[in-house]
Amino acid sequence: MNVQLDETHDAALSSWVAAANDPATDFPIQNLPLGRFRRTGEAEFRIGVAIGDQVLDLARGGLIDTDDMNAFMQAGTETRNALRSTLSQALRAGSPRQHALQSCLVPQAAVEMGLPCHIGDYTDFYTSIHHATSVGRQFRPDNPLLPNYRWVPIGYHGRASSIGVSAQTIRRPVGQFKGADDATPSVGPTRRLDYELELGAFIASGNAQGESIPIAEAEAHLFGLALFNDWTARDIQAWEYQPLGPFLSKNFASTLSPWIVTIEALAPFRVPFERPASDPAPLPYLDTPANRASGAIDIALEVWLQTSAMRNAGLPAQRLMQSNFRDSYWTLAQLVAHHTVNGCNLQAGDLFGSGTQSGPDPGQGGSLLELSSGGKQPLQLANGEKRRFLEDGDTVILRGHCERRGFRRIGFGECAGTIAPART
Amino acid sequence: MNVQLDETHDAALSSWVAAANDPATDFPIQNLPLGRFRRTGEAEFRIGVAIGDQVLDLARGGLIDTDDMNAFMQAGTETRNALRSTLSQALRAGSPRQHALQSCLVPQAAVEMGLPCHIGDYTDFYTSIHHATSVGRQFRPDNPLLPNYRWVPIGYHGRASSIGVSAQTIRRPVGQFKGADDATPSVGPTRRLDYELELGAFIASGNAQGESIPIAEAEAHLFGLALFNDWTARDIQAWEYQPLGPFLSKNFASTLSPWIVTIEALAPFRVPFERPASDPAPLPYLDTPANRASGAIDIALEVWLQTSAMRNAGLPAQRLMQSNFRDSYWTLAQLVAHHTVNGCNLQAGDLFGSGTQSGPDPGQGGSLLELSSGGKQPLQLANGEKRRFLEDGDTVILRGHCERRGFRRIGFGECAGTIAPART
Repeated sequence: MNVQLDETHDAALSSWVAAANDPATDFPIQNLPLGRFRRTGEAEFRIGVAIGDQVLDLARGGLIDTDDMNAFMQAGTETRNALRSTLSQALRAGSPRQHALQSCLVPQAAVEMGLPCHIGDYTDFYTSIHHATSVGRQFRPDNPLLPNYRWVPIGYHGRASSIGVSAQTIRRPVGQFKGADDATPSVGPTRRLDYELELGAFIASGNAQGESIPIAEAEAHLFGLALFNDWTARDIQAWEYQPLGPFLSKNFASTLSPWIVTIEALAPFRVPFERPASDPAPLPYLDTPANRASGAIDIALEVWLQTSAMRNAGLPAQRLMQSNFRDSYWTLAQLVAHHTVNGCNLQAGDLFGSGTQSGPDPGQGGSLLELSSGGKQPLQLANGEKRRFLEDGDTVILRGHCERRGFRRIGFGECAGTIAPART
Repeated sequence: MNVQLDETHDAALSSWVAAANDPATDFPIQNLPLGRFRRTGEAEFRIGVAIGDQVLDLARGGLIDTDDMNAFMQAGTETRNALRSTLSQALRAGSPRQHALQSCLVPQAAVEMGLPCHIGDYTDFYTSIHHATSVGRQFRPDNPLLPNYRWVPIGYHGRASSIGVSAQTIRRPVGQFKGADDATPSVGPTRRLDYELELGAFIASGNAQGESIPIAEAEAHLFGLALFNDWTARDIQAWEYQPLGPFLSKNFASTLSPWIVTIEALAPFRVPFERPASDPAPLPYLDTPANRASGAIDIALEVWLQTSAMRNAGLPAQRLMQSNFRDSYWTLAQLVAHHTVNGCNLQAGDLFGSGTQSGPDPGQGGSLLELSSGGKQPLQLANGEKRRFLEDGDTVILRGHCERRGFRRIGFGECAGTIAPART
């Protein structure tokens, strides 16, 4: 497990990039998340690190010899650790490299962010038992949590081509749905468009087909995390999902935040992986002492909503809920071990969605489906509006951060998307 | 619909490549399927066309200006038609290009075939109502065919990274399964390893995210078809598949045949798309007069099995069943229209699996699950062996061909895979 702390995590470090020392920034020198950006007029995306309100161009600064994020991911933990250490020193207050690197900074406000890497395959998991139970209750009232849930890290394959990056516009999808009382299905714009609050985990290096990645080695195959919105059309989902799972209800769009917070940056926020004593212990291939000791990660997650009425009235977005990734029923290492136990080959840049991260308490649902009890209890917004599901013009913003006494707070930036009207 | 017949379909045409005139060949001059091959010692795959027992190297012959199949796919129907016409003339008996092209031929036996293109996303459908009903009966005896089946072309996303090409070895996957009488699940090599007889359809050009491909335009987005084996571990599937669909039961491996038979080559074998009068008509976005008139394709499909005992005794493979793609409940054009109705963006090289192609009669099941009634009635083989599911050393071979009076028979070649013992 990569829970060794080193001097890059020292809370006393400050940067010569002034905004990185703002206590409210998501990107202090202890974070150093990686992404792909381009300036206006540039065709190709380049690898950068977020520092305060700036992006440092790594290749231009001589800090990396590629602009291919997947190649860098595949290079392995040592290469990544060496870059982290180099960046921590180069961006530190008083660094002799300040003068040379100053010209390699670009304001984040002046760049376009791309997807952080090429995503070959995308798998979505279902790791929140609170989400599985509350959604299961709506789809299968008599049988909310299926018998396999506590044994199998449930996952399914998603669509890679339609994954976009924060600030994208999502056209309301058209599809088939059928109400319980309808004799035949209808086709039209979804009436139950929803978000799902997830984390996305990127695979660093993969495995050969036919081989597996044992859980004891799984952490070394993880690159880092970003926020992930798995937009979902609930009416399409309810009608299409049996027996083979969600399809058109999901694959019209998914949105990632642009910065990958590396596994190394998250080291101070590792926490024990715990389950109720009455639950079965994970099967041996999903269990190690290290996973029990520090397999979970304390990441506070939030969903914010800004409706077009709020925007027009100059009102900021309103926070709808908070949850924490430490409440996940499965750890990332367990997901890697499970995904490969059958010899399925992972590749650098593959994306694992965590599944909707709902908390244990009412009000901690990671989707409107949960917060509005399937649309039956509209959510009252502060400006007087109500929401059962998303309306055109709504902007959904996911946020996340890690905090621990004695350490610098680090954040994930934003994962935003705005709903546009359906195609006519 | 691309059902215009032209002189490239003329049964009287013969080729200066002698083996292409053998009545038994899959690859007469009327077929001209495309694939990617390399000679011993070559690092890169090149685009070739199968003609008789030879491969014609297209770039070396000056017939194409790329070795990137996805780029060629994206170039569109006109480019593809022009190549077909050129090849038909160049390979015809008496062609003035014979001398120049002779040196661009390589025996198929001397080359290694690669995947025919880069597959960005792979979707598996479920188009055989006979398969859906008989498998549904085993998983849900009280409810074999779900209410959505006759309305929705059911599909789900599959794993692209583990798709390989014919003649591959499949290591028996390890996973979780739980018998009905077991208190807790077990982990081990699957005991119910199966094949699925499918066709794979390749997308030629895609659509922008947020846009759809209307059914009337869908055929122009199809490139061609190959055989596809969707290997499945039935015990893993039964335990994991609810509520989000198959995952590790499928993603350890899938196998394609190496040659893509183009939509143009299949034109003579188009047939009406028909459904029982008592079934609902397809919804308007899945229905056109052209789709009704010629949306289906008459492709005879077969599964052959050679066990290691047969191999050791010098016995050939035994045919287990036959079915026909014309019995599919949905056409390829309907699959394209459905997949994009929500704005999901397809890309050149995407693969659609047809789902297991079972016929209406007993004995026409496209999987051992069906042929052995879920393992309860072992299949008796001619050499005295029995099979409930696949055993180590078994080689499964899918074959397919099109026949019609007045036209030359064309075939798909083979899609073969051999089971190796599980990882220990």
